[in-house]
Amino acid sequence: MATQQTISKVNGIDLDVLQETVSAIEKNPGLGKCKFRASNKWINGSHNRTRITSFYGAGQEMEHRQPFDLYADEPPVLAGDDEAPNPVEHLLNALAGCVTTSMVAHAAVRGIHIEELESQLEGDLDLRGFLGLSNDVPRGYTNIRVRFKVKADAENTERLKRLTEYSPVLNTITHGARVDVTVEPK
Amino acid sequence: MATQQTISKVNGIDLDVLQETVSAIEKNPGLGKCKFRASNKWINGSHNRTRITSFYGAGQEMEHRQPFDLYADEPPVLAGDDEAPNPVEHLLNALAGCVTTSMVAHAAVRGIHIEELESQLEGDLDLRGFLGLSNDVPRGYTNIRVRFKVKADAENTERLKRLTEYSPVLNTITHGARVDVTVEPK
Repeated sequence: MATQQTISKVNGIDLDVLQETVSAIEKNPGLGKCKFRASNKWINGSHNRTRITSFYGAGQEMEHRQPFDLYADEPPVLAGDDEAPNPVEHLLNALAGCVTTSMVAHAAVRGIHIEELESQLEGDLDLRGFLGLSNDVPRGYTNIRVRFKVKADAENTERLKRLTEYSPVLNTITHGARVDVTVEPK
Repeated sequence: MATQQTISKVNGIDLDVLQETVSAIEKNPGLGKCKFRASNKWINGSHNRTRITSFYGAGQEMEHRQPFDLYADEPPVLAGDDEAPNPVEHLLNALAGCVTTSMVAHAAVRGIHIEELESQLEGDLDLRGFLGLSNDVPRGYTNIRVRFKVKADAENTERLKRLTEYSPVLNTITHGARVDVTVEPK
């Protein structure tokens, strides 16, 4: 006799697992509090490595299945060896991944099926800020454009756009966050 | 007869190359304007890939030496397969790389030698915002802590801390940037 298995997946998102997390946080709002972490080691010049291994979520310490290493460098015009993306490109990567996952997951919960999804990002940055050549020029990105192309029911295009507003990285960039830096001798 | 070669490197940063870029931008401030880019393709669920290939800087289109691919996923508790760091961890990576390089490069220009440099980052994020469980909870990071340990002249510790303020990613996060999202049918 064949056993019947119900898999509630939309857009590849397991809705049962997601609903379990949502229910747990609804019952105990404190479970929503997460701490994400990264450690970085300078290699040389503009070359450095970030390692990501663990985080705190759902009320407990959690380990990733394996440690993830990410590298940053700068292109030759910025005195680097171009061994890896530079940090402001890594920021666009974070934003791209986050708005994409936010759209896909929130669409899944609402029963909106997505077939294909791509995006192009571009951010404006004036080096005079970073180089200290002008105090009037912002040191960070001023404008970032995210252009999605989606294959889904055309009637849902505007809804999908609104779902990107749930993205934590998008909200961190548009609303800002407090960053405290300390430097201690080693 | 031995030839003499002067290499002006401090902290692995080639000061001649950096000075060339600075001089060019001082003469022609428009050369400071950069456009950094990323393209993202959704794979499935919370799994997606960013590709970084080119940017606009120093008044011209520039190609990286090779394309860089970066992956994002979510851990099982967030209905992912944990194949890669998640986007908010990628944001910490961007910040870590940027404050590190900013400190190292600005220290080099000022003749401050750094022997070793490491950092630990931790950011606070309440999932109730992302999940749409509360409109009062911020959807992005609220606080991020960056803790450096540096091996350098102890007298320079406070100066090194101030140099992190040049970081473009740090400034994007603390001051915010405008992000425009468009969604078009494919």
